[in-house]
Amino acid sequence: MDHPVIDSPRSVSLADSDPDDTGGMSKQEAEAQLKQLTQRLAQGQVSLYAARDQSVLIVLQGMDTSGKDGTIRHVFSSLNPAGCHVWSFKAPSEEEYEHDFLWRVHRRTPERGMIHVFNRSQYEDVLIARVHDLTPKEVWKKRYQQINDFERLLSDNGVLIFKFFLHISQDEQKRRLIAREEDREKAWKLSVADWKERAYWDRYIQAYEDALGKCGTAWAPWHIVPANKKWYRNYLVAHTLVEQLTPLLSQWDKELEARGKRALEELQAFHLQEQEQHDGHRPAKQKAGKKAR
Amino acid sequence: MDHPVIDSPRSVSLADSDPDDTGGMSKQEAEAQLKQLTQRLAQGQVSLYAARDQSVLIVLQGMDTSGKDGTIRHVFSSLNPAGCHVWSFKAPSEEEYEHDFLWRVHRRTPERGMIHVFNRSQYEDVLIARVHDLTPKEVWKKRYQQINDFERLLSDNGVLIFKFFLHISQDEQKRRLIAREEDREKAWKLSVADWKERAYWDRYIQAYEDALGKCGTAWAPWHIVPANKKWYRNYLVAHTLVEQLTPLLSQWDKELEARGKRALEELQAFHLQEQEQHDGHRPAKQKAGKKAR
Repeated sequence: MDHPVIDSPRSVSLADSDPDDTGGMSKQEAEAQLKQLTQRLAQGQVSLYAARDQSVLIVLQGMDTSGKDGTIRHVFSSLNPAGCHVWSFKAPSEEEYEHDFLWRVHRRTPERGMIHVFNRSQYEDVLIARVHDLTPKEVWKKRYQQINDFERLLSDNGVLIFKFFLHISQDEQKRRLIAREEDREKAWKLSVADWKERAYWDRYIQAYEDALGKCGTAWAPWHIVPANKKWYRNYLVAHTLVEQLTPLLSQWDKELEARGKRALEELQAFHLQEQEQHDGHRPAKQKAGKKAR
Repeated sequence: MDHPVIDSPRSVSLADSDPDDTGGMSKQEAEAQLKQLTQRLAQGQVSLYAARDQSVLIVLQGMDTSGKDGTIRHVFSSLNPAGCHVWSFKAPSEEEYEHDFLWRVHRRTPERGMIHVFNRSQYEDVLIARVHDLTPKEVWKKRYQQINDFERLLSDNGVLIFKFFLHISQDEQKRRLIAREEDREKAWKLSVADWKERAYWDRYIQAYEDALGKCGTAWAPWHIVPANKKWYRNYLVAHTLVEQLTPLLSQWDKELEARGKRALEELQAFHLQEQEQHDGHRPAKQKAGKKAR
């Protein structure tokens, strides 16, 4: 089966990727596989966490309603919450705004052993900031290189970076917005802003193509995920992570084994010492008695 | 069924609580109920998160091997990770140490809508700090009141606080340490320090009894959880949370409904306005033609 996970080339045209693509899978098949994949992810997390050698950073980007929240819920809910943090980046606070755009992001990068998921990220500063002219062009156009340098710093220091663009069509977005209006339970999520934002669709696509193209690096590749079908989106994100992390598992497990061996040796030495002390503290009579036998 | 969840009175004797207690439940029964309880917890999390009105702070304390990690894995793994953060408090960093002892804890308290779990907490500063004489008595004895004041500040500002003491016996701890030595997969977790720490058992019990007694407040009660049986420990923590959060659910849901109604009204006004603009932009001929019919 040919899964359209692609590392972005220098020039990306989103028109070439079909958001309806399902890699020839059925819904049933994808959901069954997702279950297995999330279990494998949870097992991998144990080794990652214990080895304290590397960390994992997952960046989720996509238009409104593309399913960033749903992906988090479906792919990462079975992980141990002690080793997984999700960070959502909204409009910057005043304090954040007074720093360079990577400051608030850098604070949320994962320490060794941890998995962090970014719901939106540093890329908003070359997306919404550009589309709505919040930042002058001479400022945002330097950011692609700045992001690449930042991500290389992380990568050089043991952070494994996975960036997913959840790709939906404009029609699918409309369907999802309308569905939200018709669902009383989800009405609180509604916002006029979401509809207004649709007028900027083409500008967003252009900004995304630039971000995917200019920041699709060897150390932090972009994965374009067809996301009109939620079940395929979930499957593909999980599949990509498991596929890329699996080769590292044996490395982490070796590290763990070595550490376990060292710990066990130390403990045995400790127990022996305790035993000797215990013997040493025996009443002299008993010792003598033992000797005599 | 009588579950020994108690709000600590002023004087607590841990000898009065049986760590082997299972509230008359069987393992099978507790595990079946846990499944339902964690589902209800996940549902409750959705309302809590959406209402953005209150937040939940869960404090886990207990002797080494009492099952803080296991509780996190079994009770909180089914939550949406976007709304749940786990924070582990280890030996303070140099920066943390240069502040008052609540500084690093305050930074990790949950914002509205979030659930935060503390794996160890501010209580370490009246436990290990006291047991090992890391802090002078005149300093740590003021901390009970300082903790109570801090927790009341949080409570007054919408943080629902649940503090669990996972209560194991000294024998059970020994069994667990030995089991860890015999499990090659868990050997990396071994530490001579854990064995050495056992010599301080009685001093820890005394320190815990003081912390449970002096800081068992109406706004932040302690729950003593019999924890020799892991399945009962998990059940009881989940049960306590669900029982206490359930009455709040209807309040959050009402808030959500009201918000949904407002959002829907705004949207309908927006759609109407869009429609009018659309009609207004029609070519004059077409308009005239329509009139003529």
